[in-house]
Amino acid sequence: MDFDPEQRPAQKEEPDVTVVAEGPPPAFDAEAEVERDEPWKRAAELVDASDRLGLAEFLEASDPSDLSRTIERLDRDRRGRLLDVLGPEASAELMDQLVDAQCGELLEAAEPSVAAGVLEQMPSDEQADLIAALDPEDAVAVLAELPADVARLAEEIAGFSPDSAGGLMNTDIVSFRQSTDAGSVVSDLRRRADQVEDDSIQYIYVTDGDGRLTGVLRLRDLLLSPSWRTLEDFMIRSPLAVQTGASLDELLDVFDARAYLGVPVVDDVGVLRGVVQRADVQEASGERSERDHRRSQGIIDEELRSMRLVDRSRSRLAWLSVNILLNILAASIIAAHQDTLEAVIALAVFLPIISDMSGCSGNQAVAVSMRELALGAIKPKDVLWVWRKEVQVGLINGAALGLLIGAVAWIWKGNAWLGLVVGAALSINTVIAVSVGGAVPLVLKRFGKDPALASGPILTTVTDMCGFLLVLSIASALMPHLI
Amino acid sequence: MDFDPEQRPAQKEEPDVTVVAEGPPPAFDAEAEVERDEPWKRAAELVDASDRLGLAEFLEASDPSDLSRTIERLDRDRRGRLLDVLGPEASAELMDQLVDAQCGELLEAAEPSVAAGVLEQMPSDEQADLIAALDPEDAVAVLAELPADVARLAEEIAGFSPDSAGGLMNTDIVSFRQSTDAGSVVSDLRRRADQVEDDSIQYIYVTDGDGRLTGVLRLRDLLLSPSWRTLEDFMIRSPLAVQTGASLDELLDVFDARAYLGVPVVDDVGVLRGVVQRADVQEASGERSERDHRRSQGIIDEELRSMRLVDRSRSRLAWLSVNILLNILAASIIAAHQDTLEAVIALAVFLPIISDMSGCSGNQAVAVSMRELALGAIKPKDVLWVWRKEVQVGLINGAALGLLIGAVAWIWKGNAWLGLVVGAALSINTVIAVSVGGAVPLVLKRFGKDPALASGPILTTVTDMCGFLLVLSIASALMPHLI
Repeated sequence: MDFDPEQRPAQKEEPDVTVVAEGPPPAFDAEAEVERDEPWKRAAELVDASDRLGLAEFLEASDPSDLSRTIERLDRDRRGRLLDVLGPEASAELMDQLVDAQCGELLEAAEPSVAAGVLEQMPSDEQADLIAALDPEDAVAVLAELPADVARLAEEIAGFSPDSAGGLMNTDIVSFRQSTDAGSVVSDLRRRADQVEDDSIQYIYVTDGDGRLTGVLRLRDLLLSPSWRTLEDFMIRSPLAVQTGASLDELLDVFDARAYLGVPVVDDVGVLRGVVQRADVQEASGERSERDHRRSQGIIDEELRSMRLVDRSRSRLAWLSVNILLNILAASIIAAHQDTLEAVIALAVFLPIISDMSGCSGNQAVAVSMRELALGAIKPKDVLWVWRKEVQVGLINGAALGLLIGAVAWIWKGNAWLGLVVGAALSINTVIAVSVGGAVPLVLKRFGKDPALASGPILTTVTDMCGFLLVLSIASALMPHLI
Repeated sequence: MDFDPEQRPAQKEEPDVTVVAEGPPPAFDAEAEVERDEPWKRAAELVDASDRLGLAEFLEASDPSDLSRTIERLDRDRRGRLLDVLGPEASAELMDQLVDAQCGELLEAAEPSVAAGVLEQMPSDEQADLIAALDPEDAVAVLAELPADVARLAEEIAGFSPDSAGGLMNTDIVSFRQSTDAGSVVSDLRRRADQVEDDSIQYIYVTDGDGRLTGVLRLRDLLLSPSWRTLEDFMIRSPLAVQTGASLDELLDVFDARAYLGVPVVDDVGVLRGVVQRADVQEASGERSERDHRRSQGIIDEELRSMRLVDRSRSRLAWLSVNILLNILAASIIAAHQDTLEAVIALAVFLPIISDMSGCSGNQAVAVSMRELALGAIKPKDVLWVWRKEVQVGLINGAALGLLIGAVAWIWKGNAWLGLVVGAALSINTVIAVSVGGAVPLVLKRFGKDPALASGPILTTVTDMCGFLLVLSIASALMPHLI
């Protein structure tokens, strides 16, 4: 799957650049068209034929997004045989291009010995992530098939939170003792040139006799240094490092403040354990925010539609069940005011509008609070300031929406008092909604709860109850004018 | 703001590692406590005193998240003077740690000449992003103050879509003619060592006489090459490159498929224009998904609460206005069935529950479709497959939720038929909601519309209308059993 420019024959003499660009195929080719349209069919044929070479070539020629679609649509049985047919190296390259949830599905579907063979080909941080993504019993079966030292390392990394420095770090790093001379380092690098992946050498890490990190070398300095000098003479001393337990937010702060591409990770006693890369931290941050978004909709597990129906349904239903109970709670306000509703049935038309619009306004405030929290622009203790800022927007938007809905009610029923009831209720409830929406994520965060998961249900329950209560009690107070 | 380990005195002899970790302060210090709690107050004092050195030191010592909070809370007037007091270099370092929206606010508040001075200190891609983030009239004023060549380059880059290779690329790159010898390259690099930022040299790009990209050099190969060899002898030929117009998705595919840290960007005729970095692409991708999330809640502009009230309110209201009209449309279904509602007033209690729960179920399907679209696991033409997968979940979850709400209705009013009406309506509407929710993002994408912005309002309007219609027409059909 790796692209090696040197292997390409230079067919043209002149500027010979491989430009990546999507474009129409040069000519119409019916078979190629089918493969592009339904790539999983071709993959299924190759799995059935146990054609290792053909399958590897086919997957290698696929775009990353087609790979994802192929795995999504391949049936469960063939998904189980795929890694075995493909072999460990090509499987590891395939999994490098899929998200963890898809890799987990492939590994769970495969025999434990096959899964272990594939995992052995992957970098240590990814091994750990994937083992963590497996069902516990599958994970135990796979770990039993791995060589003891690999399994120990993977288990250890899997013990770190996946979004911590320990969970994100790569342990395949290049380090040398500080007493080594520059010449030996260069010849050692030359000897290992083919083992070490191209891009993993940006810095060379320097340790003392006990493996503790003492310095960092830039390749450039190594390049410019006489070969007899020892590393401790020209290394950068007291380099910046993070501890294995550093959180994703701490890592983002580190990389925000500095242009570094990677930062070494040390344990409690300063021993070098790995390197965490800027790109991996950025990726983990992007994934976290997408995960938060899905959690706010009740997609708690990393659902893909290729997963088992029972798992998909159960995971969604867990959140929906809590929600329906909160909804019943909110609707009990209406039940308690049935007499008012019976007298002015037109109010029933406006209850869902007020519920939905207040939810929308409140969710806007939630979204802004979530963003400002993520940026560090606000902290949980800023809740009063946030509330002041939200009330201002709520007063303006509440007035606008209230006037609109009031006018609609007035024109529809020809009763200005009805307009007043629903308009006033929506205006006031908009102010309540943005206040609650702005504050709830801060309060949840203050008490260590997950704002993404709980803000929405809390917000809509409060705004529904307040909205129903406002409509029905204002109507009850103004009843003589309404009937 | 940059961390230079070499400048630090090595106070200890032994392992001397700067570990970044949050922890309690060593001792309580009342003044430091206030600064940490309300850092904008100290910043305001320093701006008022025009204390350039003090302000720079204070900001340098702040955590990145505290910086963001300081700018958020500083009043508009002082925000306008901040960059002037701080001076161009320190301002550019500060802005490197803020999001574009906050940088834009600082630049807009400052005098155009001050803003231009700060921009001159920034890399070309960031200049362009920030100019694009300004109000048009502010952008014109700032461009007029920039040197002609800088302004021209910034305008050119700003002409690329911010999420394209042209918009994301950095133009400050190291390139050499292919006829240069290795020795000259090394001595040139040595001469420029201090100008060139640490991490920007990972590859050295090689061009022909017309500036067209012909090869790429790894630093390692340069290190191991005799000084008399010319670059064309040992460069990697026909390197991978992307065109300036390549989209973010294409860039993500490129970096997904390969372990490269950066990819060169060329124009139509193959001339090297810049380099796009993996970390920048990952960051842009994360920001896009967060932006999509906020757009789905109607936060269309990049709102921060430090922005002007009128802008914040107007931007939120634009989306709410569309929503309230859709809500009124949906509620017109209830208005048309007032007689049914009047006969069975208990139904009014269940209408908001059915509306909200269907919205929740549908939004779960939207979230899964958005994720699978982003992964490439589905394409717009897979709409039938998605629908089949969703119907299965919808049938199970609809049955569960319908039974629950039906039981509640039955127990509350002691009328099994009422339970049947609301239970059946919610069951059927759940299937409709997941079908619509799963399909809508695909259909919108198929027609080139933004699924993040429009999926939610379309979904809730359809599910509200169907839900109200189901409850009221089933009730109407079973009316003899309900009264």
